[in-house]
Amino acid sequence: METSTPQTLSLRRVAIDTHRENVAYLHRDCRLYRSEGFQALAKVEVAAEAGGRSVLAVLNVVDDEAITTPDELGLSLQAFERLGLTPGAPVTIGHAKPPASLDAVHRKIAGERLEQADYDAIARDIAGYRYSKIEMAALLVACTETGMERDEVLALTKAMARSGETLDWQEPLVADKHCIGGIPGNRTSMLVVPIVAAHGMFIPKTSSRAITSPAGTADTMEVLAEVELSPERLREIVRKHRGCLAWGGTARLAPVDDILISVERPLSLDAPGQLVASILAKKIAAGATHLLIDIPMGPTAKVRTHAAALRLRKLFEYVGDRVGLVVEVMISDGQQPIGRGIGPVLEVRDVLQVLENDPDCPRDLREKALRLAGRVLEFDPDVRGGDGYPLARDILDSGRALDKLRAIVEAQGARDTSREPGHLCRPIAARRTGQVVAIDNLQMARIARLAGAPMDKSAGVDLYRKVGDPVREGEPLYAIHAEFGTDFSFACEAADRDSGFEVAP
Amino acid sequence: METSTPQTLSLRRVAIDTHRENVAYLHRDCRLYRSEGFQALAKVEVAAEAGGRSVLAVLNVVDDEAITTPDELGLSLQAFERLGLTPGAPVTIGHAKPPASLDAVHRKIAGERLEQADYDAIARDIAGYRYSKIEMAALLVACTETGMERDEVLALTKAMARSGETLDWQEPLVADKHCIGGIPGNRTSMLVVPIVAAHGMFIPKTSSRAITSPAGTADTMEVLAEVELSPERLREIVRKHRGCLAWGGTARLAPVDDILISVERPLSLDAPGQLVASILAKKIAAGATHLLIDIPMGPTAKVRTHAAALRLRKLFEYVGDRVGLVVEVMISDGQQPIGRGIGPVLEVRDVLQVLENDPDCPRDLREKALRLAGRVLEFDPDVRGGDGYPLARDILDSGRALDKLRAIVEAQGARDTSREPGHLCRPIAARRTGQVVAIDNLQMARIARLAGAPMDKSAGVDLYRKVGDPVREGEPLYAIHAEFGTDFSFACEAADRDSGFEVAP
Repeated sequence: METSTPQTLSLRRVAIDTHRENVAYLHRDCRLYRSEGFQALAKVEVAAEAGGRSVLAVLNVVDDEAITTPDELGLSLQAFERLGLTPGAPVTIGHAKPPASLDAVHRKIAGERLEQADYDAIARDIAGYRYSKIEMAALLVACTETGMERDEVLALTKAMARSGETLDWQEPLVADKHCIGGIPGNRTSMLVVPIVAAHGMFIPKTSSRAITSPAGTADTMEVLAEVELSPERLREIVRKHRGCLAWGGTARLAPVDDILISVERPLSLDAPGQLVASILAKKIAAGATHLLIDIPMGPTAKVRTHAAALRLRKLFEYVGDRVGLVVEVMISDGQQPIGRGIGPVLEVRDVLQVLENDPDCPRDLREKALRLAGRVLEFDPDVRGGDGYPLARDILDSGRALDKLRAIVEAQGARDTSREPGHLCRPIAARRTGQVVAIDNLQMARIARLAGAPMDKSAGVDLYRKVGDPVREGEPLYAIHAEFGTDFSFACEAADRDSGFEVAP
Repeated sequence: METSTPQTLSLRRVAIDTHRENVAYLHRDCRLYRSEGFQALAKVEVAAEAGGRSVLAVLNVVDDEAITTPDELGLSLQAFERLGLTPGAPVTIGHAKPPASLDAVHRKIAGERLEQADYDAIARDIAGYRYSKIEMAALLVACTETGMERDEVLALTKAMARSGETLDWQEPLVADKHCIGGIPGNRTSMLVVPIVAAHGMFIPKTSSRAITSPAGTADTMEVLAEVELSPERLREIVRKHRGCLAWGGTARLAPVDDILISVERPLSLDAPGQLVASILAKKIAAGATHLLIDIPMGPTAKVRTHAAALRLRKLFEYVGDRVGLVVEVMISDGQQPIGRGIGPVLEVRDVLQVLENDPDCPRDLREKALRLAGRVLEFDPDVRGGDGYPLARDILDSGRALDKLRAIVEAQGARDTSREPGHLCRPIAARRTGQVVAIDNLQMARIARLAGAPMDKSAGVDLYRKVGDPVREGEPLYAIHAEFGTDFSFACEAADRDSGFEVAP
């Protein structure tokens, strides 16, 4: 009888970034590839020969020894890191068993209602990178609005919140605010946090970077200060200053949410149930006790009708109440961008104008921030209902909010980066005389992004007119700023095709 | 003003097989990667600079110039072929617009019923490789049983049938048979085709290779003859011999089906609507006019209850009638494998025993083939209802079916490969005395596959006992055959963990 050939391969790091999907590379002449009957795109389990850690990965078959030789098993960057071994380590490879919780996904596809234990199992398997992208797509589609009851949204929220670390601030009231997104320039957190913290309320705000928008709060704050802080450092800053404006990615909070988003986004799936579970899970894990949700509503916003906004509000309230989170929801005007600048540097300018009480500051940004801050301040039992707004205004007008932002910037580490808008600049002119009747949030975000935002902090769009303003033919509606020629020409071309503005006589 | 940097990259063929998903590789330092704001796994459109062809691909970001340099754009093997340019050709890259038909998928997710035009648009985009895997997963989940009405199955069938080439045999009656699969050893086509063709009926049978099973008809036929024939050659053979047993992959029939299967299979989605559309679309494109469908039913078969088999039958009939295909459905015994051999060489042995009227031939294979052939023969208006079976038996018993198979083998090109079962062999013994009460189709398929089938034609499982047979402790239930040590030990380990047989006193 023939003896068994060695069943281990030598681990290789393949310098390909496959984002949140693990990929394994096996040479076509590899003995194990043939004998195991693998196929390209089959899911395999790669394990240390010594036992212990393993990762699941989809298989790509390689015909080039410069990438992987027949005696090697290559892993894409993130998969290699997840396995945590050194190059050359002996590894084994086998057919991956589908994660056990896929059974629940199939029941969901068949129309069943899932229980808490099902969602917990699903969240565990996703957090362990045991789901492939198509399996996540199957889950997400099965869980779209019609397919998910309120109690299931609650169960999914709890399961996601438990899937990673959780913070405990040991404070009786931990305030937070969150906007569901979709409105360019809407940089209210950089105003609300200093106002609220100046009042003495505890508001350890962590934010995301932009994924499909021209700037996230973390991108914009980074113009002024460091935002990537260790959890310990963050804790120290918030203890002292009662607030912070940091990037949320350093702690591993509700990681399942990040993994699911990597599939949700390209599919443009944004069912209310998933939105609510995603936001609330992150906030629970971040240790918030009181949360204000901002739902902008408008023809080019994420939520387009009042009925839809109300349904979403009730879902936030239902889940929030049952996970012990005090949730307030504000439905705001989302018909156009907020403020003037779109893109990190331009948004910082707007924020500072408001904090400095510049008479030329963007009024809509100031007003919205005051309304939001007022509502957050009313979480304080000592603030009488209705007194939040004037209290917020007093704090802003007195300069105490500006002082607080400066203190936070110093504490996080001030950055000495340029605050000049990109030097390539082109005004986009009105093609007729009349009044601005609509501004398309999606198109403005797209133009700013093509101009280079948020990777180029100085890139973006500077709005000269807002809805209701009169304009004459040839007068500029806005300017595009960019740092690099390619970006600039892409953005200008997009604006020429569709300016995003509607002007009516 | 800065001038635009060149916006073309040099095309490179990256020797990675990513199966049915196009992948583009861009170096992290590539100027266009940064400026375009691409992210790993974003979908991009790669086009010839000269215009014309383009492909959509998901983006992988590369940090190794041995794979792709900053001035190059790499494409995985299949994507490179699809673009059809030479290495070094100048190409452009941009954000891919989502395919227009994704709008219909979102309506389907929302619970709407789609129209023929929607399915046509979806099929066109999929055939053009414009859907990513997760988009296909979204479509498939949205279209599962509860989500798809009978008329939608009809529309999907028509759309898939139109998505590629279609064959026209210019014959009044083009017969075909198809089993929905799941039963190891069930090699009836190699008997039905010669019987039916010997009668003079036109049966140009094309088959698939195994995907998850230990053998497809094309794999088994390949032990005897060439199966990869050009469409012209195939036409000539069938004209002369009235039948063939060839691989169906050389013509581009209903390609959408193949692409969807690459996502359906790893997701284990097998909704009746998709199954029916998939099978009928292929048969319509292949030019069949009369089709016999075999639905094996049993506890480890694809269809497990009589009610489910009936529902499936009615769906086949409904769609078949409306596309002008005469469809007959036979519900057969799927409680255990058919015949004795599982794996190409062992199955050929069974088939030849039946054709040679060997008294020791597997009776169940002979009986099932005669029943199926009889039903196909009754498609002939001159064959009286009920006369098909005895007619088939006469053709088989007279040796005319054997002669016909030999003629087809000669015409396709006889192969002189070994017909010996794999020389590594281990019998698996009963652990108790009693009667075989169940054989698990899935486990037997798995063991045969691990032993090396279908890539090693000689590998597989040879069954010595079937359901109802008595057996004594220590007597062999079956033998595993393999050619290579690794395969052999995997298969033996699997059989030791679970033999697949249930023996009761």
